Order: sequence, then structure tokens, then C-alpha cells
Amino acid sequence: MASFKEKTRLFSTLLDPSPQPRQMNTTKRRYRRSKTIPANLHLLRTKDNMTLPSQSVLGKLHPSLKQVVLLLAFYLTAGAICFSFTNKQIKGKKTNGILDSVYFCIVTMTTVGYGDLVPNSVATKLLACAFVFLGMALVALTLSKAADYLVEKQEMLFVKTLHIHQNFGATDILKKIESNKVKYKLFMVLIFLILLIIAGTIFLSEIENLSLVDSFYCVCATITTLGYGDKSFSTKAGRIFAVFWILTSTISLALCFLYLAELNTQHRQQELAKWVLTRRMTNVDLEVADLDEDGVVSAAEFIVYKLKEMGKISQEDIVAVMEEFEDLDVNQNGTLSPSDITLAQS
Amino acid sequence: MASFKEKTRLFSTLLDPSPQPRQMNTTKRRYRRSKTIPANLHLLRTKDNMTLPSQSVLGKLHPSLKQVVLLLAFYLTAGAICFSFTNKQIKGKKTNGILDSVYFCIVTMTTVGYGDLVPNSVATKLLACAFVFLGMALVALTLSKAADYLVEKQEMLFVKTLHIHQNFGATDILKKIESNKVKYKLFMVLIFLILLIIAGTIFLSEIENLSLVDSFYCVCATITTLGYGDKSFSTKAGRIFAVFWILTSTISLALCFLYLAELNTQHRQQELAKWVLTRRMTNVDLEVADLDEDGVVSAAEFIVYKLKEMGKISQEDIVAVMEEFEDLDVNQNGTLSPSDITLAQS
Repeated sequence: MASFKEKTRLFSTLLDPSPQPRQMNTTKRRYRRSKTIPANLHLLRTKDNMTLPSQSVLGKLHPSLKQVVLLLAFYLTAGAICFSFTNKQIKGKKTNGILDSVYFCIVTMTTVGYGDLVPNSVATKLLACAFVFLGMALVALTLSKAADYLVEKQEMLFVKTLHIHQNFGATDILKKIESNKVKYKLFMVLIFLILLIIAGTIFLSEIENLSLVDSFYCVCATITTLGYGDKSFSTKAGRIFAVFWILTSTISLALCFLYLAELNTQHRQQELAKWVLTRRMTNVDLEVADLDEDGVVSAAEFIVYKLKEMGKISQEDIVAVMEEFEDLDVNQNGTLSPSDITLAQS
Repeated sequence: MASFKEKTRLFSTLLDPSPQPRQMNTTKRRYRRSKTIPANLHLLRTKDNMTLPSQSVLGKLHPSLKQVVLLLAFYLTAGAICFSFTNKQIKGKKTNGILDSVYFCIVTMTTVGYGDLVPNSVATKLLACAFVFLGMALVALTLSKAADYLVEKQEMLFVKTLHIHQNFGATDILKKIESNKVKYKLFMVLIFLILLIIAGTIFLSEIENLSLVDSFYCVCATITTLGYGDKSFSTKAGRIFAVFWILTSTISLALCFLYLAELNTQHRQQELAKWVLTRRMTNVDLEVADLDEDGVVSAAEFIVYKLKEMGKISQEDIVAVMEEFEDLDVNQNGTLSPSDITLAQS
């Protein structure tokens, strides 16, 4: 969620590279309503990101798309080698040594587990146990990367749309797309999934000679990772197709569930935000919101108070930032000015 | 995530019911560093929550634990009835009509799909397709409820711990537990999962007469929802055990993965927050952070700026709250006072 939010922020900075306030023209009163981080600072940030400590510390826990693909390739190669060597200790319908091993790995890592090929010795059974856990972690990683990738694609689409409609209230269009972001993503993945279901059904009925109902039943049993195994891919061509199709379709269905959950969360957040915003303010609220105790509530104090009520920011966040503020506020007058910064950093 | 954060906030309010600032004693300078919402307001909120619009609008999408249990019961009853009537169209190793139907439903909804019982007619095949999709959604719902439930349990543990150590710096202990919350939850679920694995292995070797390796292999194939089906529950006693054990153990493993992901996200957020907080402030930063353009940056403005940089709050959040602020600021002097509130709401 954080990386998503951060991306949204970076994206909005990208769209608005000028240090001028974006919505100056719509400001009713004397406020700069929405200041974004200026362009030079944004560049500095993205450059610095390369050496950001979290990147190096957590490189292994947050690998790039390239690293995930490499990991997948490594997993499948290792699986192909392991199960090729123990080929005789696996029973079931076989086609080709290496192909069967890769197919077995895919069926195992996605937890489809048809059972058309099963380990038949202590060694292969324990090996399968290890491969299913490692594979599950890898599938989860691939899933999160696929979700990230779709967010980036979505953002490129935004920029294009914005570019086309530059003259017709770009911010309004942006706002509309932004608020329907998850819906669009869900729609995209659903279309893709339906195409995969159709392709799988046609393939199974044509190549594996199943009836249409059996094909559809096998497709449903596969994409949900149910895998009863009474119908599965038993020909050489079928298993080559299966290696690619199973991974793509199971991940697509998982993505659908993920986006549905995100949509639900987003909807609930919006309802809560609306409720918090329209709730009547009382004098007690005012007193609590008045962070610097000067008797009035400034715009920034109001923002902090309301966002805390919405649960967007926590007490811990505020305490951490306040500590930094107090370190910078050298003359202790409760505000930061250029002279404070110079003194604090010298 | 939002509901989690909100709970954390409500929880901290619960621990600190006085309207006085919680960390007054540790404040270095003239700030109330951490104001929490006063007790009366908190009570008002929880009472209002009952009639919160989001609750009624989204009741179906965000059901209570009781509703989830009811849904589960309804699903299993419907499944038992459907598959009892079509008992002859299901082939495989059978024990008892109703028991087999419930067992088949559990094996299907968790996507374990051993294949020891498989639909054998067009009607039952299509019924199984419908049941697996509905079941997956239900399992996902149960999973999210289980996660929520654990958060609540965890919070009760906090209160107890805090109560015991009241005299030895309660806030420090709270801070320590709070920052390791996800780790504790992961630890709890891991212990529970290991117990389930041991119980499953012993049961399979004792009741189903499998070797120890086969039992462990069947346990691994089940909790990961792999379900090759070469080893499964084939006795009456085994299937009664399976109905409860499969649902619990698959959800526990999914919870482990969920918490691992949460831990990873949390770690990345903390690294980013640390980096944003310790980054050198420049005069350009000061200018951007100065929301009301009075030439200096107040504490609240600094908080808004830094939390936006961290990606915790977005431009959209700020714009929405500012609109509300401007509506309330009747005299347009850029601050809210009791007279503004009275005027705005009359």
C-alpha cells in the first residue's frame, strides 16, 4: 500500500513539475490549496532513491521485476534438474523427461496439484514439500510484482489521457480517472482472465479431446488451483501450453480477488472520510486540534486533526515528525524559518 | 489497512482516556506533542459508529465475524444438500452420504482438491465450478476476519501487559509492543500452525495408517492446498477430522504469508520514514511546506509536509480537508475560532 501511495505521489509530482501551486485558479481564498514538491526536489529524490538505505537493506525482500523473473527461471531450472534425475521415482502419465519436470514444478508451485504426476519415493516426496513452499512464496512475489506493474501501466495511460485532453479541464479528468483507478485495473484483469478462460477451454477441447463441459470444468479447476486431477493436460503439446497458461491464469484470478479487496477497502475509506469531514465540529474538537495552543486552529492543524480522525495518520507518525521539528527549531519559537535551518544544520 | 489503523487509534484512545496530553512529561519544549481525542468524544464516536453510513451501505461487503460464520454454515449446508442429492453422480472412495458431501465442499472451497471424490456428470461438474468460486470468496472473507480477530486479541494482550507493568514506564513498553505487533502476531500464528502440522501428521499416521513420511507429505500437500490426492482422508473418522483441520490449517498458513507481507511493508515504510525525517531541509522545502504563506513553517505545517513526503497522506486527502476548512472559516482569516464554528453551523 505504501509503495502504491508513494507512486501515486511521485506520479502527481510528475504531472505537475512546476513549483507553482497546481490548483491556484480554483483557490477560493488566500490559500495555496495544493502545493506539490517542486521539480528539482523530485529529481533529487528519485536520484537519491537509488542509494536509499531501504533499497540495499531490503533488496532481497523487495526485488525488481527482473529479479523475480530470474528467480522464477532459477526455480524452474532447479526443479527440472531435480525431478529429471528422480524421474523414475515419479509415477503417472509421462510424456518427455524435462517437460514433465517443468510441468510438475508449475503444477506444484501454483498449488494446482492435479495428481497426474505424483512423487513415489521418500526423497521425491520431501523434495515436493520443499518445492511447494518455495513455489508459493515465489508466486506471491510474482503476484505483487504483477500488481505493481499494472499500476505503472495505468499511470502511463493517465499521462496519455491527460495529454489528449489537455485543453478540457485536465485536472477534472485526472481526478475522475484517479478515483476509478482500481475499477479500471479490475476491469483490465477481468477481460484478460476471460480471454484466458476461453483460450484454455478451446485448447483443452481441441488438443486434449475433452468435451466442452469437461474443458470448462478443467479450466475452472485449474485457475482456482483446485486441481482435482480427473481432467488434466496429458499430451506433450498440452503440457507445453499448460506451463505458460497455468501460471498466467492462476495469477490473473488472484489479481482479481486482490483488486476486489482493494476496491472494498477504498470504498470503506471514502465513506469514513466523508463521515469524518461532514461531522459537526465542536469547541472541544477545536481545542484538541489546536496543536500549538495559540487559541485558534490553522489550516495545517485542521488537516492533521481530520486526517488523524480518519485513521490515515497515527499518533506515532506525529510524534516522530515532532521530534525532528523540535531538533530543527533552534530558537524554540514554535516555527521554522531559514535561520533555524541554517543554525540546526551547522 | 484503514480499519487496522483506525483500530490502533481507537486503542490508543482507550489506553489514554484523559483529555490531558499523554506524553506531557517527556515534552522538551512548549508543545503538546501528542494530543489524543478526549474520552467523551471517543465514546460519542463509538456510539455513532453504530449508525455510521458506511456500516449500513457496506454491511454486505464488510460483515461481522458472526455473519461470516453464518455464511460458512449456510455454504456447507447448501453444499451438503446439493451433493447428497447428486451422490450417485460423484465417483471415488465413499464413506457416508452427508459426511462425504461436507468433506467434498471443504476440499473444494479451500482449493485443496484431492480428487479422491470427483464430480462425474455435467450437472455436478458445473455445480463444483460454482462452489469453488463461491468457496474461495468465503475463505478470503474468513481469512480477513481471522486477521481482524487476531488484531483484537493482540490489543487485549497489550492492555493486560500495560496493566501489569503500570509502574515501570508504561508508554515505553507500549511503544515496544506496538512496534513489534506484526512480529508477535506472526509468531502466534506460526506456533499454532506447527501444532496443527504435528496434530495432522500424528492423526494421519494413527488413523489413516500412513507412514510418518507419507503423513507429513499429505499434511504439506493439504495446508498449501496442493492436494495431489495420492494420499488423503479415506476413513469416516478421517473425514470428520479433515472437515475441521483442513479449514483451520489452510487459513493459518495463508495468515502466515499475510503477516510476512505486512512485516515487509512495515519495514519498508519505517525505512522510508527514517530517510524522509533525517533528510536535510532546504529553504525550498521550507517555502513549499509553508501552507498559509506567512513566511514561517509551523509544527502542523511541518507534519503535513513530512507525512506527504512519506506518502502517508496524498494531495487528494489535503484538498478534501481544505475544502471543509474553507467552508468553516467564515471570517476568512485563515484560522478557525469558536466564533467561526458558531457562524458556520448556524
